[in-house]
Amino acid sequence: MAAGAEVRLLGERLSPYCIRVQQALAVKGVAGYEYVEEDLERKSQLLLSSNPVHGKVPVLLHRGAPVCESLVIVQYVDEAWAGPAILPSDPYERSRARFWAAYIDDKFFPSWEPFFKSNTAETFKNALPAVGTLEGALEECSNGKPFFGGDSIGYVDVALGGYLGWIKAVDEVAGTSLLDGARFPRLAAWAESFAAADAVRGASPAVQDIVAFYKKMQAGGETGASH
Amino acid sequence: MAAGAEVRLLGERLSPYCIRVQQALAVKGVAGYEYVEEDLERKSQLLLSSNPVHGKVPVLLHRGAPVCESLVIVQYVDEAWAGPAILPSDPYERSRARFWAAYIDDKFFPSWEPFFKSNTAETFKNALPAVGTLEGALEECSNGKPFFGGDSIGYVDVALGGYLGWIKAVDEVAGTSLLDGARFPRLAAWAESFAAADAVRGASPAVQDIVAFYKKMQAGGETGASH
Repeated sequence: MAAGAEVRLLGERLSPYCIRVQQALAVKGVAGYEYVEEDLERKSQLLLSSNPVHGKVPVLLHRGAPVCESLVIVQYVDEAWAGPAILPSDPYERSRARFWAAYIDDKFFPSWEPFFKSNTAETFKNALPAVGTLEGALEECSNGKPFFGGDSIGYVDVALGGYLGWIKAVDEVAGTSLLDGARFPRLAAWAESFAAADAVRGASPAVQDIVAFYKKMQAGGETGASH
Repeated sequence: MAAGAEVRLLGERLSPYCIRVQQALAVKGVAGYEYVEEDLERKSQLLLSSNPVHGKVPVLLHRGAPVCESLVIVQYVDEAWAGPAILPSDPYERSRARFWAAYIDDKFFPSWEPFFKSNTAETFKNALPAVGTLEGALEECSNGKPFFGGDSIGYVDVALGGYLGWIKAVDEVAGTSLLDGARFPRLAAWAESFAAADAVRGASPAVQDIVAFYKKMQAGGETGASH
């Protein structure tokens, strides 16, 4: 459905959290919304007044009312619009999806984030246990289907999907393969399915753009995706 | 409704996160469940197998199926049982409730947690800004009614309510008044209303028990409510 200026997203193009929200909007079929790129060095008055507590992107403005924090936004998008479900309908499955989305932000990301500063063999090794846990989560959630959400992209998929371009970019620069098929066959297949999925095509920046940004970060020219 | 052994809660009596879940079960009217006290120095096999990722309490077992992470549990309780609603029904209000519950765990608690180590004037001062933000949140959410949830205890109420006994205990030992009526009139009134509410009476330990535990922590005999 066309959302027009009724829906605005304040974002930063390469932020995993903004990508995640754009993927959720795409899955839900919310189209034609206004995307506003923020300069985080000079935040707009609209951003500061819409998210006075954190001052961070993403912020979704729906008929002017701000929704902040990416996982809160994804749940809001799921509840406020008709369209394909992002969260499962069964309460227990919903609880598992929420558990794993929180794990991705609270455990996986902090274990992988050191790549922003250095990409040594130790950085890589330290990131593996959380990826291994996610391999198990995918087995648990997917019931042998391609996505955490089963046959279609759901809550855990966009939670992890927001980072996917970054994972690929870091792999390219560092010469690593985080979601290696030999080590993590399910996640490797998931990454391929996710990247190929019509539902989120166009909702993610080109990996090469992230590569260029990451190289600048490595050179000390950028402070990273800090939101 | 009586839950019998169909519902088991693995907890630790003084953990704010376990208290929060017990408050949510009480609000929802889930009664007669089996409460299992865990010794966190010697975690049970049931705890470790129910929450292999974090190994933490609380864990709610519903017909044997484990739900972990206190805010995930509270949402599960709200969705899996009939009874008074814990989250609002309107998607936008739900998003605000989720935003503030996350704020309580991610910002308020870390700013107040230093009291576990020292209760100097500086510790107190550093905790005030987040409390001030919550005073504004209460104004925003309550529409002039006693609770974040309006006339009845809701999601943000139990998110903060799990800490309330701890706040009182620390105040008593430190000689402070974190939710002081002169500084934070809304939160001070909220704390009184919450403590007096029939819906959660009996779901929280006695403040004096927390005082005794906190004094031991201060003396170095306990490692704190680490879950």
